[in-house]
Amino acid sequence: MKIALDAMGGDAAPETPVAGAVRAARELPVDIVLVGQQEAIEQSLASYGQRPSNLSILHAPEVIGMEESPVASVRKKRDSSINVGVELLRDRKVDAFVSAGNTGAVVSASTLLVGLLPGIERPGIAIILPGVKGDTLLIDVGANIDPKPLHLLQYALMGEAYARCVLGRSRPTVGLLNVGEEETKGTDFMKETYGMLEGSGVNFVGNVEGHDIFTGEFDVIVCDGFAGNVAIKTAESLAHAINVLLKRSLKMSPITRLGAWLARDAFKQLRKEVDYAEQGGAPLLGVDGVSIIAHGASTGKAIKNAIRVAYDSVRRELNKNMVDAINLYSQHARS
Amino acid sequence: MKIALDAMGGDAAPETPVAGAVRAARELPVDIVLVGQQEAIEQSLASYGQRPSNLSILHAPEVIGMEESPVASVRKKRDSSINVGVELLRDRKVDAFVSAGNTGAVVSASTLLVGLLPGIERPGIAIILPGVKGDTLLIDVGANIDPKPLHLLQYALMGEAYARCVLGRSRPTVGLLNVGEEETKGTDFMKETYGMLEGSGVNFVGNVEGHDIFTGEFDVIVCDGFAGNVAIKTAESLAHAINVLLKRSLKMSPITRLGAWLARDAFKQLRKEVDYAEQGGAPLLGVDGVSIIAHGASTGKAIKNAIRVAYDSVRRELNKNMVDAINLYSQHARS
Repeated sequence: MKIALDAMGGDAAPETPVAGAVRAARELPVDIVLVGQQEAIEQSLASYGQRPSNLSILHAPEVIGMEESPVASVRKKRDSSINVGVELLRDRKVDAFVSAGNTGAVVSASTLLVGLLPGIERPGIAIILPGVKGDTLLIDVGANIDPKPLHLLQYALMGEAYARCVLGRSRPTVGLLNVGEEETKGTDFMKETYGMLEGSGVNFVGNVEGHDIFTGEFDVIVCDGFAGNVAIKTAESLAHAINVLLKRSLKMSPITRLGAWLARDAFKQLRKEVDYAEQGGAPLLGVDGVSIIAHGASTGKAIKNAIRVAYDSVRRELNKNMVDAINLYSQHARS
Repeated sequence: MKIALDAMGGDAAPETPVAGAVRAARELPVDIVLVGQQEAIEQSLASYGQRPSNLSILHAPEVIGMEESPVASVRKKRDSSINVGVELLRDRKVDAFVSAGNTGAVVSASTLLVGLLPGIERPGIAIILPGVKGDTLLIDVGANIDPKPLHLLQYALMGEAYARCVLGRSRPTVGLLNVGEEETKGTDFMKETYGMLEGSGVNFVGNVEGHDIFTGEFDVIVCDGFAGNVAIKTAESLAHAINVLLKRSLKMSPITRLGAWLARDAFKQLRKEVDYAEQGGAPLLGVDGVSIIAHGASTGKAIKNAIRVAYDSVRRELNKNMVDAINLYSQHARS
């Protein structure tokens, strides 16, 4: 198996992508291709001693910045690490592509260059969120901010397939993110989507609310990309605020400082449980190839875990399973 | 000043509304009317010794449950505590109405029975969220889940007026909740709203993201009620999850347990900082009368604080200020 990694993507590129690639090359039975500015990558690699034999570099001189316009930059910067990496995926020279770079550019390049799986109308970004009772897959968190009900139905089918083959859930529950639990809640768009999900064959458990995202009670939660994007960024913002406020209040006296020091393993444990780096990457589902988006602030460990997500998706034949699910639905809908 | 309180609203009614009313009656120079089932209220009141002279009861035999359909229940249950309380507001027998009951029913009753301020098309629920650098007002969090750009413009004007007169901000900043910062981001709906906000006369600082909700960097953030509802419920869910996971991990060893005990004042401080009960109530802005919605899980303290929000809104002539802001905009838009 061969996985291409965008070495220029993320807030601290190429250092953290290189760090993640070295870890992944040591831990996983895959060949990793670092795509980006050769000289900068070589420099970062120098500090790791002998280069693992399953790690190579493919030079790509251009870089798409985190704030650049996605579609325009993908069209103009043909030699960017994102374009070159996604072209490897298109040409089947690699099995998967991983990037912590400009999310919109990865979505655009993957959609425009690789194309979508047969029957899929729009790709969706799925994110695995930690919860009290376990993880929940939330799809879509921003690839498609103005979706049609059919898109959400397809997200349900793809998310369900992901939860089954990659996360190993036996009969994943699927909820629809809405503003209330009753079937009659929400906009006309939500009501129409509800009706389609009821007849979709997935284990649809009805509407869920923002309340339900971090409980871990549901395997898959489907949402429109606008609300999903707001939800995950709000959650990230709150987690940060709690972290800052807790650190501040733990410094209030020598006693609380001592308490914090004694309890440090518990904080470490909590951080591990809620840390996105443990999940690593958000799969862009629906693309005819495995494309994984990592957080811009990814650490080397997060990059390594994103590569693992790619590895698992390829190994478990995720895309074949998703296509089967879509076909099964189409047959079912026709009959 | 006279404030009506829905004694039957919330998860632990009438106990907590009564507890909040007793505290408010002692702390604030207002007359409080407890609206609800007289006998149950009397029973709850009995445990507080002598009843404050500024506390009275108005019997309302019916109760609208938390899960009942809002519009239908408001139409059918004429003698419910929500209807009777809102009628007091309509007839100017009280200056404000406060309820921790069925949010949709409070919105419906306030809109149908009291009506809206001149020029206002839709009411919006504003919520005050704690942040690292201070509080942020988020409007709308669920009164209007399928708004028009004009509604969001009016939320901006009303939210700005609230931040000025009730929160005491001198020139409040107003952001638009979107999926990216650039002007070109988001749906057509968002782009149109952006254009209207630019010409609105408020101190519009452009698009903000979910990331910005808990920083306290912005005084007012305007959003559609669907995304706003998802955002606050997601935040509540995450706060709960972090609380559960932290408590669990603090129990991992005798050392961490000791640490947690020593640091208990810091946790108390944090809880105080992020607790919605400190804010108390979410004003339903746009109604021709002060209507405050408290969380269903409100404690007595939260109810008392919601009554204080009502008290401040009346005292600072919030509605007059909002009408002035709307009129100023209309003149400005015409010229």
